[in-house]
Amino acid sequence: MMRLGQLIGLKKENLEKYKKYHSEIWPEITSMISECNIRNYSIYHFNGLLFAYMEYVGEDFEADMAKMAADPKTQEWWDIMKPLQEPVDGRKDGEWWTDMEEVFHQE
Amino acid sequence: MMRLGQLIGLKKENLEKYKKYHSEIWPEITSMISECNIRNYSIYHFNGLLFAYMEYVGEDFEADMAKMAADPKTQEWWDIMKPLQEPVDGRKDGEWWTDMEEVFHQE
Repeated sequence: MMRLGQLIGLKKENLEKYKKYHSEIWPEITSMISECNIRNYSIYHFNGLLFAYMEYVGEDFEADMAKMAADPKTQEWWDIMKPLQEPVDGRKDGEWWTDMEEVFHQE
Repeated sequence: MMRLGQLIGLKKENLEKYKKYHSEIWPEITSMISECNIRNYSIYHFNGLLFAYMEYVGEDFEADMAKMAADPKTQEWWDIMKPLQEPVDGRKDGEWWTDMEEVFHQE
């Protein structure tokens, strides 16, 4: 199992909209997340920052992420989410959410 | 089970020291964390920000956190960690790590 921590900004005026969408997330999105082997997925907010924690239980992360990215309904969801967000400075080329470095883990 | 997401700053010049301490964390600290019913505890870093994710499996979170805070070895550990960190603006009175708001969760 692989753990991931990711960071992105959220424009402050969009917080309520972002929360509302996620409280009524489309079933096709949650299904695709599960199908792509993501588990125990949480998103936290504080003061314009979003942090995501998730666990990957599949065998081919790249392939699963490519599958998710190719899904039309997921693309439609991202097209609504992306304008609400603001990727952080210093992220790698091609990143939207930025992968953070795990500096500690205890079971 | 209760999930927590917490945020704090890390002074950039202290990153390597912080990582080194956590890679060689004292056994008394990990024992106390477990004893206080914290599980699946991860800390992530990006660009001077630390994000902590953990799960609480006990029955009395306040009491367990008070027990941890009263432990002399934990106090000793915190006395080393705190000067490396920088609490974020906008945190609540009395917070060191800031509790974030969970805006999404999917099992």
